[in-house]
Amino acid sequence: MSSNPTANPTAAMLVIGDEILSGRTRDANMYHLAQALTGRGIVLKEARVVSDEHGAIVEAVNTLRAAYDHVFTSGGIGPTHDDITADAVADAFGVPIDVRDDARAILAHRYAVAGTELTEVRLRMARIPDGAVLIENPVSGAPGFSLENVHVMAGVPNIFESMLASLLPTLTGGAPLLSQSLRVMRGEGEIAGLLRELAGEFDDLSFGSYPFQRDGAFGTNLVIRGTDAGRLDAAMVKLAAAVGEGAA
Amino acid sequence: MSSNPTANPTAAMLVIGDEILSGRTRDANMYHLAQALTGRGIVLKEARVVSDEHGAIVEAVNTLRAAYDHVFTSGGIGPTHDDITADAVADAFGVPIDVRDDARAILAHRYAVAGTELTEVRLRMARIPDGAVLIENPVSGAPGFSLENVHVMAGVPNIFESMLASLLPTLTGGAPLLSQSLRVMRGEGEIAGLLRELAGEFDDLSFGSYPFQRDGAFGTNLVIRGTDAGRLDAAMVKLAAAVGEGAA
Repeated sequence: MSSNPTANPTAAMLVIGDEILSGRTRDANMYHLAQALTGRGIVLKEARVVSDEHGAIVEAVNTLRAAYDHVFTSGGIGPTHDDITADAVADAFGVPIDVRDDARAILAHRYAVAGTELTEVRLRMARIPDGAVLIENPVSGAPGFSLENVHVMAGVPNIFESMLASLLPTLTGGAPLLSQSLRVMRGEGEIAGLLRELAGEFDDLSFGSYPFQRDGAFGTNLVIRGTDAGRLDAAMVKLAAAVGEGAA
Repeated sequence: MSSNPTANPTAAMLVIGDEILSGRTRDANMYHLAQALTGRGIVLKEARVVSDEHGAIVEAVNTLRAAYDHVFTSGGIGPTHDDITADAVADAFGVPIDVRDDARAILAHRYAVAGTELTEVRLRMARIPDGAVLIENPVSGAPGFSLENVHVMAGVPNIFESMLASLLPTLTGGAPLLSQSLRVMRGEGEIAGLLRELAGEFDDLSFGSYPFQRDGAFGTNLVIRGTDAGRLDAAMVKLAAAVGEGAA
């Protein structure tokens, strides 16, 4: 894909958790976030997965928050000793962190309803860095938070998704990122020259080709992306005509 | 998970492709690589996804190859204009890149058998940086390559997997990373204190807890990892006994 400079806000994702890197768990949040951001006109430019190590999290948070408009993190905000994301984010910003009354109240209410004790280890989930805004967690109560442009959410997929649904409407999006695709039963190599020419002519759009194999035959999904629907149409008309003319 | 310093080789993964970041495609190679490396005793410490931009690839390759024993890349080595990984890796190392005879011969043979023309755009797939060692691609011919500690492979999952299968036996692994897991129908909050104590006592092992919800009930998968089977057993016996004693 050729790069496509737009005025859309940019973002990075930071997935935190040894379970992803060890292959125990297959990450699902990156795929969900990528689709949700694209729909909102926010361009996901980079994603990183780091282990549950304080220094690794701090470094990644500071690198990414300086480089992009938004950073979305996933994982490491539960009650156990390896849940160190909130403290690492506080350190990255150089702000204090402690159990905060509003977060404690949310947990207290949730556990009271469930008839469960709000123990000291559970109270870890109410540790919120100074200056952060809570992100609602309708699934299990314990909130995430936004500190400036860093949005800290849970790793369990249905909780991550519910937090993101709470958060996204509060963020400023950009012009929707549109795409059109064309599936052709020809190898990438037959289409590469054509695609390069189109990418040169339509330099405000981006052109991608994604090869696949099915029943021993090679095919390619061609995808054009951009924010101007008219330009997308014009490019797709040319692409379809050219692929059609050249088809065997 | 507490960090677990071992003598095992370390690795990073670099996924290259706008299609992952836009949410069009769900990455599958990270999960596959993570499992394969764990089986081989190589510790995946970090993963990054970057877009098809020359500068982004160069920077990530140089950062990761300096920090880890191995870097595995996925994507961007096909014939189209957005397949820029080989050139970016050559630039990262400051070495020339051109069509190389051994890679050209592989493609020429493959296309001759298929009765297809080896066009100029297809020849892009024979561009190999000076000093690189080819990685066999039994699926579709076009090879990957290793340049020092950077291993460049295709993004299409079945091709990535076949290349990795060619490559992995040539790399020096470490002591196998073992794990034992215990599934309990209790929330993480009930187990957090116990896990923290065990992590302190067995500081050569790492302890992970992965919450889940099923039919409205909270459960947790507890995982102990390490390279010493005896220590793993000892820790699991203590964990199981403690969880059993405390069970409601």
